[in-house]
Amino acid sequence: MKYLPGHPHQLPAGRSQLADYEATHFYFEVADQVATIILNRPERKNPLTFESYAELRDLFRALAYADDVKAVVLTGAGHNFCSGGDVHEIIGPLTELDMPGLLAFTRMTGDLVKAIRACPQPVIAAVDGVCAGAGAILAMCSDIRFSTSRSKTAFLFTRVGLAGCDMGACSILPRLIGQGRAADLLYSGRVMTAEEGERWGFYNRLVPDDDLLIEAQGYARMLASGPAFAHSMTKNMLQQEWNMSIDQAIEAEAQAQAICMMTNDFHRAYHAFVAKQKPEFEGD
Amino acid sequence: MKYLPGHPHQLPAGRSQLADYEATHFYFEVADQVATIILNRPERKNPLTFESYAELRDLFRALAYADDVKAVVLTGAGHNFCSGGDVHEIIGPLTELDMPGLLAFTRMTGDLVKAIRACPQPVIAAVDGVCAGAGAILAMCSDIRFSTSRSKTAFLFTRVGLAGCDMGACSILPRLIGQGRAADLLYSGRVMTAEEGERWGFYNRLVPDDDLLIEAQGYARMLASGPAFAHSMTKNMLQQEWNMSIDQAIEAEAQAQAICMMTNDFHRAYHAFVAKQKPEFEGD
Amino acid sequence: MKYLPGHPHQLPAGRSQLADYEATHFYFEVADQVATIILNRPERKNPLTFESYAELRDLFRALAYADDVKAVVLTGAGHNFCSGGDVHEIIGPLTELDMPGLLAFTRMTGDLVKAIRACPQPVIAAVDGVCAGAGAILAMCSDIRFSTSRSKTAFLFTRVGLAGCDMGACSILPRLIGQGRAADLLYSGRVMTAEEGERWGFYNRLVPDDDLLIEAQGYARMLASGPAFAHSMTKNMLQQEWNMSIDQAIEAEAQAQAICMMTNDFHRAYHAFVAKQKPEFEGD
Repeated sequence: MKYLPGHPHQLPAGRSQLADYEATHFYFEVADQVATIILNRPERKNPLTFESYAELRDLFRALAYADDVKAVVLTGAGHNFCSGGDVHEIIGPLTELDMPGLLAFTRMTGDLVKAIRACPQPVIAAVDGVCAGAGAILAMCSDIRFSTSRSKTAFLFTRVGLAGCDMGACSILPRLIGQGRAADLLYSGRVMTAEEGERWGFYNRLVPDDDLLIEAQGYARMLASGPAFAHSMTKNMLQQEWNMSIDQAIEAEAQAQAICMMTNDFHRAYHAFVAKQKPEFEGD
Repeated sequence: MKYLPGHPHQLPAGRSQLADYEATHFYFEVADQVATIILNRPERKNPLTFESYAELRDLFRALAYADDVKAVVLTGAGHNFCSGGDVHEIIGPLTELDMPGLLAFTRMTGDLVKAIRACPQPVIAAVDGVCAGAGAILAMCSDIRFSTSRSKTAFLFTRVGLAGCDMGACSILPRLIGQGRAADLLYSGRVMTAEEGERWGFYNRLVPDDDLLIEAQGYARMLASGPAFAHSMTKNMLQQEWNMSIDQAIEAEAQAQAICMMTNDFHRAYHAFVAKQKPEFEGD
Repeated sequence: MKYLPGHPHQLPAGRSQLADYEATHFYFEVADQVATIILNRPERKNPLTFESYAELRDLFRALAYADDVKAVVLTGAGHNFCSGGDVHEIIGPLTELDMPGLLAFTRMTGDLVKAIRACPQPVIAAVDGVCAGAGAILAMCSDIRFSTSRSKTAFLFTRVGLAGCDMGACSILPRLIGQGRAADLLYSGRVMTAEEGERWGFYNRLVPDDDLLIEAQGYARMLASGPAFAHSMTKNMLQQEWNMSIDQAIEAEAQAQAICMMTNDFHRAYHAFVAKQKPEFEGD
């Protein structure tokens, strides 16, 4: 299958499968219900282009309907994560655009973040080496972040004369590492070391260089073999409750958790517990 | 006094007293204006039941009108805090309920959190040993958290096939420890160690095992002997401003603090300062 | 120039300059497009008075229109930052006021915070020694905070019988250091040590005592010589997105960043990069 399943009736109820999807601008595979996306232009430290932005956006949108993917790992080839928007392929052309053209571009990059946040699968970013600009955003908007000790994460928009407010950074980064540390990174464009990233709560785990992809895929498989429907509800509610009051959030969770108590996985867990067995979740 | 004071006219202006309240499903006492609640089924690590949920909810609601309690300590008996909803007494029956029944349950548990957040007294959780599921929620929704070095705090809803969005966790936990660390705990259900809890800002203080209750009650007494009305306003505004804009919050605080400047405690503090004495606050 | 430029037509389009402003209640100078404000009543640890509150508020409001200031450093004289509202000059008179008078005061102090948050220049607080009460608020509402190892930061409103909700503290402090740590500081009024402040994300950097002002001014000059218009947009959006949903924030940033892509600084950066030179930003 070459193209993304935009046709809504491939499977009943508009569901589809992505295992055979052949990506054009990055590496993509599905194994054990875990999709692995590898940005793979290692000779340029895996920059983003107009085309790869668009394909990533379409892929994450398609994941909303994919039955065969329960978690996603996002990483880069050649010991770097992603160097962000390519200077020659993106920055240059942007300097030629008028305002409607610029807004169309910034909205497209924002749509990628919206799609990553909206897909039901938890996304685990596995970060080594350079993680800069839009690359840092991709790590930031993932659900879980693993890193090696040598990652260099920089929200360096300010270095190219732009503001730190790019693709949701002024909203999401402060909630990860605190408003003060986020301000420093966004104003200065400086590198956050891996050690800082772990200490500040950006990176969930620092792992040895050789284990990075294995650890991230292991975490993803753990989630994929768990109660996937419930995990998708956790992701959804972390998003939904972003700016609710506490009382609104509690009512929203009462409804969301009541839905999850109707799932088979909840019953499977109870019966396994009573039988003193390990539950076998099926994601429904 | 056996039952909770639901009758509104026990004292003038609907005020009441709780010192003589005899709790049915947990230990309760009031001393030095500090209420101590001890979940006390230590042989089961202090699980919650339908009945204890309801009695806790009613008690925290009654605290809103209690004149004789200025701070609350919440802890567990036998070196564990709380193991959460009992599998046999809660999970099993839930698997038999229809949707209205499930929603009635999730709303009742949410109402307990709402009541803890809404009562004017600061709540200090003193956590040792197991602190799991709804037990972790009770610690999370308290105002201050002390722990021993051996506490094991786990939001393990996912382990029973449910989502991490339970009783406000997706709203409150990220504000305590950051969005990324909260996501890890809520997706994986893994244990947060006491050391992680302190480092991440969940636990305010780690104390030696034997000092836990003493330290928590000492903090509570410090608050109870302070400007209790002002403390209740601090708690109220931390709740109110949860999702306000900064400018809205500043105006709300201008009004709230002007109210506090009308209190006797504010005048007592000023006159004590002028007289080079320690102020004696009375909470009004 | 003795008075603040409230007259709107001093320069075309209502712009003005502040370099010659002669402050009455604190030290003020502008060098290299960096304004330095020094609270300078060192014999009293630089307290605030009704008059200095008002002049600071008016100055930060004027900064919104000042062409010649791109960043601000806020510090105190004599190895202390600021001891907050003076007991004799502020607390005493407040005890004599009626409610409209109290609200007028709390709104004026809040207006200072609003003005600091609203001015387009990033504000760097350089904190040594005592940083208490309203002084702690001034540090809190700055964009970046540097400190020596001996600073003592205390939100001690509760010590004078008041609530922790003062000038936005219940909204801003939790976003800097987490909701739990903020609750402890606001309820207890205790000192946050410099080491805690750095570990918790309140202070961005701890520097040797003798280097404090130099480091803060260096950071400010770095920002002032960068893309100042873009920096002002970063500050604006950190404020704007405070309580937006993620999707609202992403759309808001798409618009804000598209505006920045129209600036000369963005083009300068691109052309410098192509020419393998360091960009020279001019702030427009």
